[in-house]
Amino acid sequence: MTFPADAAYAQALDAADPLAHFRARFVSTDPDLIYLDGNSLGRLPNTSVALAQTIVARQWGDGLIRSWNEGWFDMPERIGAKLARLVGAQPGEVILADATSVNLFKLVVAALRHQRERTRILTDDLNFPSDIYIVQGAIDLLGSQHRLEVIPSPDGIHGPVEALTAALDDDVALVTLSHTVFKSGYTYDMAAITARAHSAGALVLWDLSHAAGSVPVDLDSARADLAVGCTYKYLNGGPGAPAFLYVRRDWQEQLANCITGWMGQRELFAFGLDYAPATGIRRFLSGTPPVLSMGLVEPGVDLLLEAGMDALRAKSVQQTAYLIGLWETLLEPLGYTLNSPRDSARRGSHVALGHAEGFRIARALIQDCHVLPDFRAPDNIRLGIAPLYNSFADIHTAVQRMQQVVTDRTFAQYSAKKPVVT
Amino acid sequence: MTFPADAAYAQALDAADPLAHFRARFVSTDPDLIYLDGNSLGRLPNTSVALAQTIVARQWGDGLIRSWNEGWFDMPERIGAKLARLVGAQPGEVILADATSVNLFKLVVAALRHQRERTRILTDDLNFPSDIYIVQGAIDLLGSQHRLEVIPSPDGIHGPVEALTAALDDDVALVTLSHTVFKSGYTYDMAAITARAHSAGALVLWDLSHAAGSVPVDLDSARADLAVGCTYKYLNGGPGAPAFLYVRRDWQEQLANCITGWMGQRELFAFGLDYAPATGIRRFLSGTPPVLSMGLVEPGVDLLLEAGMDALRAKSVQQTAYLIGLWETLLEPLGYTLNSPRDSARRGSHVALGHAEGFRIARALIQDCHVLPDFRAPDNIRLGIAPLYNSFADIHTAVQRMQQVVTDRTFAQYSAKKPVVT
Repeated sequence: MTFPADAAYAQALDAADPLAHFRARFVSTDPDLIYLDGNSLGRLPNTSVALAQTIVARQWGDGLIRSWNEGWFDMPERIGAKLARLVGAQPGEVILADATSVNLFKLVVAALRHQRERTRILTDDLNFPSDIYIVQGAIDLLGSQHRLEVIPSPDGIHGPVEALTAALDDDVALVTLSHTVFKSGYTYDMAAITARAHSAGALVLWDLSHAAGSVPVDLDSARADLAVGCTYKYLNGGPGAPAFLYVRRDWQEQLANCITGWMGQRELFAFGLDYAPATGIRRFLSGTPPVLSMGLVEPGVDLLLEAGMDALRAKSVQQTAYLIGLWETLLEPLGYTLNSPRDSARRGSHVALGHAEGFRIARALIQDCHVLPDFRAPDNIRLGIAPLYNSFADIHTAVQRMQQVVTDRTFAQYSAKKPVVT
Repeated sequence: MTFPADAAYAQALDAADPLAHFRARFVSTDPDLIYLDGNSLGRLPNTSVALAQTIVARQWGDGLIRSWNEGWFDMPERIGAKLARLVGAQPGEVILADATSVNLFKLVVAALRHQRERTRILTDDLNFPSDIYIVQGAIDLLGSQHRLEVIPSPDGIHGPVEALTAALDDDVALVTLSHTVFKSGYTYDMAAITARAHSAGALVLWDLSHAAGSVPVDLDSARADLAVGCTYKYLNGGPGAPAFLYVRRDWQEQLANCITGWMGQRELFAFGLDYAPATGIRRFLSGTPPVLSMGLVEPGVDLLLEAGMDALRAKSVQQTAYLIGLWETLLEPLGYTLNSPRDSARRGSHVALGHAEGFRIARALIQDCHVLPDFRAPDNIRLGIAPLYNSFADIHTAVQRMQQVVTDRTFAQYSAKKPVVT
């Protein structure tokens, strides 16, 4: 699909955008900054600023210990129930807790303990490496016969759907995948993969970190078994905000949380010496949640609910298609490659563009062009588009600058040495 | 020890208190409130209010993803190094991460995997129940031959030192105890217990949740192997603030973290598909830390370092002794029992007073007497004394009101029904 490459066209798209007004609901101290890293750390909602003060000064400073009974204790379930609406789950199926890796550990271990008679675990090489590490660690810990098979993507961009499907047999215990993968933005057909895995008797665990708030997710309709996800990307929950986990209701009493901390105990304040899991989703809690970081998950979720996932998805598809159209016209001739799916049905809300000088181009964009993408080895410049606050003009400007960086060859002055976080 | 029971004596003690000025370093919106629950949730340091805004508005809102390279990434180690000074450890031996229960799980599992040839795990029935649950869960998960022995306290107040010592043999894998126990405030002699356990070849894991910032802790001198602790009690880090863990330097490369998330990976952004642990204490990290909650741990730690643990301990001992003296004169005749050690060397910074009507007395104090203690079943009214901000007048007033509640019998009007958090 080609688009006019002029700025006026972008402005016209923005003028027609029914979600354009949401941009003003986020803090923007530097109106010239083109922020395309909402897939890594979402922007700060305006209301989170006051909420942070409320939690710190009023709830902690003034309410002190009493605030546990006035909202803190219920926070993991209450905000989890809101988040459930974004991912097609019911209240009581989603809870906020811990970091994504910790939740993944809990659910992988639970699944493998339930599936001891089967030995194979399937994932792909597009999965976030941390997810693979966690599975490796869980297998090692359990000392079980399980083994992980990392099925390669055919092209480094698309999920290996055929190979995954072909690999399914009655020895597969668990299939665990990123719904939207972190580099290319490829997005699996959750319902189809889940159904195929189920027909082989395998459980499915989805990592929604790059999907929640960016693509339509319908866990219950797909009959997904388990899911985890982070809240600081498209959900705009703030740096390192607590993650979430989903356990389909009929699994909740059948699976065990191996990190048996007091928050998952049935009678929290009886202080008995034998662990008995809480009923329902609370059994997947472990320790005391970081209230301040957890509380700030709510404003971002509220904004997404207000905008509606259907409208957000429509805009996201339009925006990534526009970006890809501009790439084709302006960037492909300069050596940029498209490292994301062309098929919008299989594409999340970020687009990866490769370039032989990708790392230095990313440095140039960040340091001198007022564009913030991120970079993922070996050559991916990831452009995260958050339809809540990114405009079509953002995309147009970013593409222009990516073009200028190469035509002016200014990127050659940038060091190829990588900082800790790129 | 008896003390004059008049308010003037308390005022004289406050006038002579070299730490009295620290009280003004904490937010106090209600100057009449007697807050004696700093052992559960410490007060809000003044500087934390502005710091929360700095992290939210400047670091997140303005710095966005760039802030990871400007302090967030190093936060777990940097604040951990400060905290290390409070517990007698070196920088690089303490790190902030996750919830206490999650850290305990990681270290218990690591210890048990290292001690597979030994079967016994020792703890006591004064330990925080969550710690016992975690050990139960870890044993169950490992499917190992380990078994937990919960040695009873002789009186529900003091640690069963003799029985623990007698139980040590060459089949003990791990001894895990709360250094200061949550109900009575009994505090173990860390060096003595550790030495005895080591002479039997056992590892020792200390939970410092009620000890850090309240009693002198010298992990390195005691040659303690492992420790965990929470930061929201005497460290004043805020509700559910991330916990800490300690692994003695010479153990770090020998023990494995079973929650192998990306933050503990050697090359974080290489995104290789095989986990390789980071060197040093960072290998005990798992997922992305909740930055906002973690950042607010620092002001409380700074205040404790500024005051100095020796001075804090001296004041704490003086304050708990004063409280016990007033109890003896004024409260014991009314049916209150002392459920904490009389020997200050074995006492932390909270004092538990029992009463047959303990729960209703606690309700009366909270609802109508402007005194905030907490309550732990069956009959313990816990009076947490945080020497950084509690005055001798606080103690005197609290005792007076505990006296009045019984002499006026107003507690009879309060429901015996317990709210979720008491």
